[in-house]
Amino acid sequence: MTDKDDIMMVANEASTELARKVAAELNRPFSEMTRNRFADGECYHAFPGDVTGKKLVIIGSTHDDVSHQELLDLVQGGRYWNAASVNVVIPYLGYSTMERAKPNTNEIPKGVTRTRQIFRARPDFVTFIDLHSEAVLHAHAGEINTFHAWTDHLVVEKIMSCGFSDFVLVSPDYGFSKRVARIASMLRCPHTAADKDRYDVDKTIVGQVSSVVRGKMAIVCDDMIRTGGSIIQTARRCLEAGAVEVAVMATHLVIAGTAREKFAESPISRVIGSDTYPGRISDELFDIYSVAPLIARVLRKQLKLT
Amino acid sequence: MTDKDDIMMVANEASTELARKVAAELNRPFSEMTRNRFADGECYHAFPGDVTGKKLVIIGSTHDDVSHQELLDLVQGGRYWNAASVNVVIPYLGYSTMERAKPNTNEIPKGVTRTRQIFRARPDFVTFIDLHSEAVLHAHAGEINTFHAWTDHLVVEKIMSCGFSDFVLVSPDYGFSKRVARIASMLRCPHTAADKDRYDVDKTIVGQVSSVVRGKMAIVCDDMIRTGGSIIQTARRCLEAGAVEVAVMATHLVIAGTAREKFAESPISRVIGSDTYPGRISDELFDIYSVAPLIARVLRKQLKLT
Amino acid sequence: MTDKDDIMMVANEASTELARKVAAELNRPFSEMTRNRFADGECYHAFPGDVTGKKLVIIGSTHDDVSHQELLDLVQGGRYWNAASVNVVIPYLGYSTMERAKPNTNEIPKGVTRTRQIFRARPDFVTFIDLHSEAVLHAHAGEINTFHAWTDHLVVEKIMSCGFSDFVLVSPDYGFSKRVARIASMLRCPHTAADKDRYDVDKTIVGQVSSVVRGKMAIVCDDMIRTGGSIIQTARRCLEAGAVEVAVMATHLVIAGTAREKFAESPISRVIGSDTYPGRISDELFDIYSVAPLIARVLRKQLKLT
Amino acid sequence: MTDKDDIMMVANEASTELARKVAAELNRPFSEMTRNRFADGECYHAFPGDVTGKKLVIIGSTHDDVSHQELLDLVQGGRYWNAASVNVVIPYLGYSTMERAKPNTNEIPKGVTRTRQIFRARPDFVTFIDLHSEAVLHAHAGEINTFHAWTDHLVVEKIMSCGFSDFVLVSPDYGFSKRVARIASMLRCPHTAADKDRYDVDKTIVGQVSSVVRGKMAIVCDDMIRTGGSIIQTARRCLEAGAVEVAVMATHLVIAGTAREKFAESPISRVIGSDTYPGRISDELFDIYSVAPLIARVLRKQLKLT
Amino acid sequence: MTDKDDIMMVANEASTELARKVAAELNRPFSEMTRNRFADGECYHAFPGDVTGKKLVIIGSTHDDVSHQELLDLVQGGRYWNAASVNVVIPYLGYSTMERAKPNTNEIPKGVTRTRQIFRARPDFVTFIDLHSEAVLHAHAGEINTFHAWTDHLVVEKIMSCGFSDFVLVSPDYGFSKRVARIASMLRCPHTAADKDRYDVDKTIVGQVSSVVRGKMAIVCDDMIRTGGSIIQTARRCLEAGAVEVAVMATHLVIAGTAREKFAESPISRVIGSDTYPGRISDELFDIYSVAPLIARVLRKQLKLT
Amino acid sequence: MTDKDDIMMVANEASTELARKVAAELNRPFSEMTRNRFADGECYHAFPGDVTGKKLVIIGSTHDDVSHQELLDLVQGGRYWNAASVNVVIPYLGYSTMERAKPNTNEIPKGVTRTRQIFRARPDFVTFIDLHSEAVLHAHAGEINTFHAWTDHLVVEKIMSCGFSDFVLVSPDYGFSKRVARIASMLRCPHTAADKDRYDVDKTIVGQVSSVVRGKMAIVCDDMIRTGGSIIQTARRCLEAGAVEVAVMATHLVIAGTAREKFAESPISRVIGSDTYPGRISDELFDIYSVAPLIARVLRKQLKLT
Repeated sequence: MTDKDDIMMVANEASTELARKVAAELNRPFSEMTRNRFADGECYHAFPGDVTGKKLVIIGSTHDDVSHQELLDLVQGGRYWNAASVNVVIPYLGYSTMERAKPNTNEIPKGVTRTRQIFRARPDFVTFIDLHSEAVLHAHAGEINTFHAWTDHLVVEKIMSCGFSDFVLVSPDYGFSKRVARIASMLRCPHTAADKDRYDVDKTIVGQVSSVVRGKMAIVCDDMIRTGGSIIQTARRCLEAGAVEVAVMATHLVIAGTAREKFAESPISRVIGSDTYPGRISDELFDIYSVAPLIARVLRKQLKLT
Repeated sequence: MTDKDDIMMVANEASTELARKVAAELNRPFSEMTRNRFADGECYHAFPGDVTGKKLVIIGSTHDDVSHQELLDLVQGGRYWNAASVNVVIPYLGYSTMERAKPNTNEIPKGVTRTRQIFRARPDFVTFIDLHSEAVLHAHAGEINTFHAWTDHLVVEKIMSCGFSDFVLVSPDYGFSKRVARIASMLRCPHTAADKDRYDVDKTIVGQVSSVVRGKMAIVCDDMIRTGGSIIQTARRCLEAGAVEVAVMATHLVIAGTAREKFAESPISRVIGSDTYPGRISDELFDIYSVAPLIARVLRKQLKLT
Repeated sequence: MTDKDDIMMVANEASTELARKVAAELNRPFSEMTRNRFADGECYHAFPGDVTGKKLVIIGSTHDDVSHQELLDLVQGGRYWNAASVNVVIPYLGYSTMERAKPNTNEIPKGVTRTRQIFRARPDFVTFIDLHSEAVLHAHAGEINTFHAWTDHLVVEKIMSCGFSDFVLVSPDYGFSKRVARIASMLRCPHTAADKDRYDVDKTIVGQVSSVVRGKMAIVCDDMIRTGGSIIQTARRCLEAGAVEVAVMATHLVIAGTAREKFAESPISRVIGSDTYPGRISDELFDIYSVAPLIARVLRKQLKLT
Repeated sequence: MTDKDDIMMVANEASTELARKVAAELNRPFSEMTRNRFADGECYHAFPGDVTGKKLVIIGSTHDDVSHQELLDLVQGGRYWNAASVNVVIPYLGYSTMERAKPNTNEIPKGVTRTRQIFRARPDFVTFIDLHSEAVLHAHAGEINTFHAWTDHLVVEKIMSCGFSDFVLVSPDYGFSKRVARIASMLRCPHTAADKDRYDVDKTIVGQVSSVVRGKMAIVCDDMIRTGGSIIQTARRCLEAGAVEVAVMATHLVIAGTAREKFAESPISRVIGSDTYPGRISDELFDIYSVAPLIARVLRKQLKLT
Repeated sequence: MTDKDDIMMVANEASTELARKVAAELNRPFSEMTRNRFADGECYHAFPGDVTGKKLVIIGSTHDDVSHQELLDLVQGGRYWNAASVNVVIPYLGYSTMERAKPNTNEIPKGVTRTRQIFRARPDFVTFIDLHSEAVLHAHAGEINTFHAWTDHLVVEKIMSCGFSDFVLVSPDYGFSKRVARIASMLRCPHTAADKDRYDVDKTIVGQVSSVVRGKMAIVCDDMIRTGGSIIQTARRCLEAGAVEVAVMATHLVIAGTAREKFAESPISRVIGSDTYPGRISDELFDIYSVAPLIARVLRKQLKLT
Repeated sequence: MTDKDDIMMVANEASTELARKVAAELNRPFSEMTRNRFADGECYHAFPGDVTGKKLVIIGSTHDDVSHQELLDLVQGGRYWNAASVNVVIPYLGYSTMERAKPNTNEIPKGVTRTRQIFRARPDFVTFIDLHSEAVLHAHAGEINTFHAWTDHLVVEKIMSCGFSDFVLVSPDYGFSKRVARIASMLRCPHTAADKDRYDVDKTIVGQVSSVVRGKMAIVCDDMIRTGGSIIQTARRCLEAGAVEVAVMATHLVIAGTAREKFAESPISRVIGSDTYPGRISDELFDIYSVAPLIARVLRKQLKLT
């Protein structure tokens, strides 16, 4: 069992809010890093107390270069000051959809290379949440303990708490339908899938949706929403197929560019998602649940917290 | 001997200009990376041609997170596509003055940790220019070939080309005086040092300068200029000690915040420096020489170019 | 350029036939390993000549424990006797469909762990052909040069040589439809996909096939055929949808258990596939093309053979 | 001290019986792996419960490719699922007599290369029993904790329990005589050695045995019995030299090919040995003792079990 | 918390005296290695008891090849016998002033290479005391826990115990003046620096000392005294500047060649220093304090001793 | 093929003579390291020219701590200055007879640990000559190219050049008799073995020698001579068995303590051996041949010298 004093919990700047929630769940203090930015743009970081012999927990989404880089700095800093172990939680992993290099493109598969940077910083344990592809889990030589945590239970709980009656889960493409089926079976509700095809880098077209949605509320589920293009198309297909209302749900709410505006203008009644992507909070459009309980559960087991 | 076709030379975005000059010096083509930025801020990179079996040269200063990160991406991309070797040139190394962690501060010595990230990306060879501290050269387990290139010859050539008569080199503190002495001996000119003391994180005070500068042009030399504070103070001390004119010279022109304005208002006649820091070009204040010939010389030897 | 005498090409026992063809393509000798089996079942291996300083090429499918193990032995043997480089070609990778561990199953993802064994044997270069999942490519710390070779050109050539007129390519599920589309575009023929769902470990059910196959020859394409269950189902769906003839095509012909009998009894006119899986030869049912030209092309480039 | 619940003990299929005995000795449950063999010959493995944070013990002899491979799979599986430590016991190590490559043979020294495969799977601790050569212990870079356990105490106990009176230990060659002397001194009995010479790969000739065996029971001791050739020859020499009865004793009873028949036809009264080699059980010829108490003792110390 | 029985504390021969003091501070037994020297000069080493599962502490200065080599042997021996952790304390690090290779000299920077040898022996933790340069701390790939312990508190205590009244600390050069300032601020006494210049490998000249020493006792402080040349010169400058008495103080008393004689003949009243360099004991000239309390403090924290 | 200018050949101080001979054999210059010893005993090393891009050859016996340590320094220096490859020749390996740790002794097996230090210094290639045990060859993780060179051809040539008529080779124990048999078969002469038993650390007793030596010259052969005890005993047994003259022959002439005197007083007519052990030269007792031609042959092949 691990003593309260044996843990230090920090975060990169972007994930501070989420980390505070995790600390509260675990009934442990959160430690804010000391940060000073110099005139030349360089940033000074110091741990707010002695790390030596502590089990260091670092929570950090890597949705931009600065956050990714700060995560690397924190892992290395923890090793430098002789932490007993360095345990990393990555709520949202940047570049996770770029994990494959297409043949003859000479493109850099940053999903793999960036995750490898994290592994090379020598953490003892790394947890990811609802990964787009598990290939990144293996981008090391077997020396890193990794864990892929799924939000299934949180998602089920969230949907049940919404008070929807008579709903069906819809996957925007066949690739994601296995996970939607898994969640539907936990909710004991029907599910179906649209047929998305990617025609160009940013253009997709979504095919017809099965009539199983007719007269029901459709909840379109995906792992992440970036520009929202295909999920909004899928929502429209659901309405065309007779759905009476459409909500969408995704773990990672990137909501890039004008996505928010597009959702506001769309027939979608609400966007349910988690707080893995920094800055997501509930408002009239977004309905956000926290992954803090999930992270707390993983850490409790891994660090043998009581 | 290495064939012309066996080399591919690329750069991170910030160092593209300098890399083009190096390519010209070596009479080899420069290859611009394909870069696409997506709506969510992620950046797609692809090599413009097949890297397999090529000796890849990557030139990249790491003065900000984005540039540092792009350098890591390029090194890993080169390995991913089976380059014969990956050779890195870092004209300006970010965080190079943060290479020591003060006792009991729990601060992260980013000079060391960031350089280690570069080494961990598995380049075959890494060259640095005029390092603030050589500690970073050793931040690996002996598996990386490194080289510390000095600008001494370029500096001497540059000063001689300026046509100054009767000048003396001045070091702003004792720490840098050894290098100033080395350059002065190549120039066969006198040299002296001021006594700088650092009182606080950003505050230094520069002591008296020896009378050897009286009636002469003083060239205050340092490895880098950030805010310019102490070098401008040293310049004033030189004038107080009777210097007739003061120029300053440094390899790395960071020129952070309002530094440019401070120089413009100072009695300093010109600021001589190199193009290691991205964006530095000659104008009415700055007199910039390029390190391209030095980099070319290092690469010619390392890659056995004819 | 690499001298003829600088190469030594060997194979594990199972891939000897294929390796001989590769050697013929490259106009290089094939070297048969010396093998002696002792009374206790242990097998003695010796290279038939001096490996020191040679670029060793090892061709070996890993479809069973003995062949996988022999490949590891050969790689390590090459390193032991100081080969200049050890280059591995894995025509068929065993366990490649077991690359993911399902949550909470505690199952061993052998696709990853077995491939990692190969990487840990310290080859310099490893080529795979038509991988079921690319996740295995990354199961190292970045120290291995890997290459994923696709049979696309061979497949196109093969189909064109069959003299079919008016055919359509069919994918048995949506997961594989991208690759089928790619090949169809090279062949300038239409393509469609059935909708396969996996209900249990060994049971799948294939949905309706689009009417695009009506009146045409359907070629059902997949990466591998194991028991043949779903591909035969897909063939039947094609006939139900009006196809006039059905052939199937897959790179890796595992043809496990009673699969051959099932194909013989099915309405499928022929089974086209490659010789990646050891023992596959053309007969009244199977129409086998060799991947030797593809392997030769990869080696020619990697080893800089003329 | 390690809690009961903190241990999980598994085995490869071949060593299941022995592992059950070890578990009984330690008063800990044995966990049988879930194994499913698919039509294509591939084998699915899953741990029967959650491994995370447990000290995993894996017992596995590596007498054939399948068992060796399964051991590798289990070690890697334990790491994959984040075992706190992975502790391996190898009762019988395959290829242990092939630990040297003769000059100019280009043979693969599999004793070394196979053991290295085990080390590369990243166990924390590996125990071997009565190794033929200790060279394999060092086939890593110093990162593996190894232990060479000797059966001396078990052997002494076994012989004493046989109720022999007036016996002498005989080594079949000079190489093994040191160990025989060590055991003889523990038993306070005389010992001698025959002079074995190896003339060809499978042919040896055993010289005269000293008259110290006259009128006594001779127990010929070796580390392993494979075909039994030389140990049976030695037994005959003992009778020629006047021994009144001959038994043989060896830790590892490989008993390859027709060895059992040869022993049955020989004048040897019984074959004493351990259960390190899978499948060895007592019958009218073999008198088997278990190494389970020895393994239990090693694990008790290493895992700090009470 | 660590049990008494879980620790084993040993030393290389040269640091045995100091290690005994550390053991006494920690109230733990010291274990003397078994050493036998053979006729051919080789030395046999054995731990005096079972190391398995123990936290091994090894104390060893590396002032000559034999001591350095013995330290490596002990670290590797501890790993070989499966110590739970290997914790190294290096009171005096040899070659610590040779940590930089001057450009174009092709000299071997042994400060770095020798420390890397220690890191490569795979200790878990290494503590250094008052390093000449911290560059050596980083000469690994991030896999070693290091700690740089400073004697500041011991130095302050020592000076205060000397009963000096009205003293000033003097640094012999500007490089060391920061540390002198730090200690002076702890002692609330004035401090100043002489200006040392190194003209040749063994020749330095020390400039004037500030008049702040007039009428006071001057304590010239440095990190180490080798030949004593520049510290004696500085002492003379202090007297020339009006100091009434001069003592010198350094952590590491190398006292090479005729240094002792030079000090005896100098006007220096006493030489205060620690016992990091083997063999230093108090006498009429040297006033030695022990670093044992500092080492004990570091170990108490690192090993969680009560 | 390797150019003359691409090689730099150096040696540790002890093996300088032998290295000069190797250089002469290869018709390449030998480069003497620059060495300066400082007052504190530390030794400065510099390569006499630029190592960058050169294939560095380092010849160094490791018979004492200083020589072993210098070898490590040279390997690391070569890596530091970016040699293209570092190739090590170890004519005599110190501690090679201490490659096993006896059970329960807690002794450090320095044969293994010291060799591992050499491998950890990251040479590309290491050659050993006539190793006492090959276990040290494997003391790495498979990343080092090693080669075990045997002097057999040199030995045969040497004996033939001595002009002996009617001689027999004698092994002092059974362990070494295989190698003696190998050499005898090359010489087409008879051979036999005495029976050595080691009773205590330094005491051995040699049994009777076969009558095959009667009337002949006996040449007692061993891999090394340390104190000479058992080889002199064997010589006496040969004379007792009727030999008319006795010479001894060994690769490594350690000749420790009073061994020379003992040989001078013994009936042995001459001691034939090689120059692997530093300092061995021919005189009235010793008849020394050089291993330079053997080393040259190995290097010629490994470095592809013409």
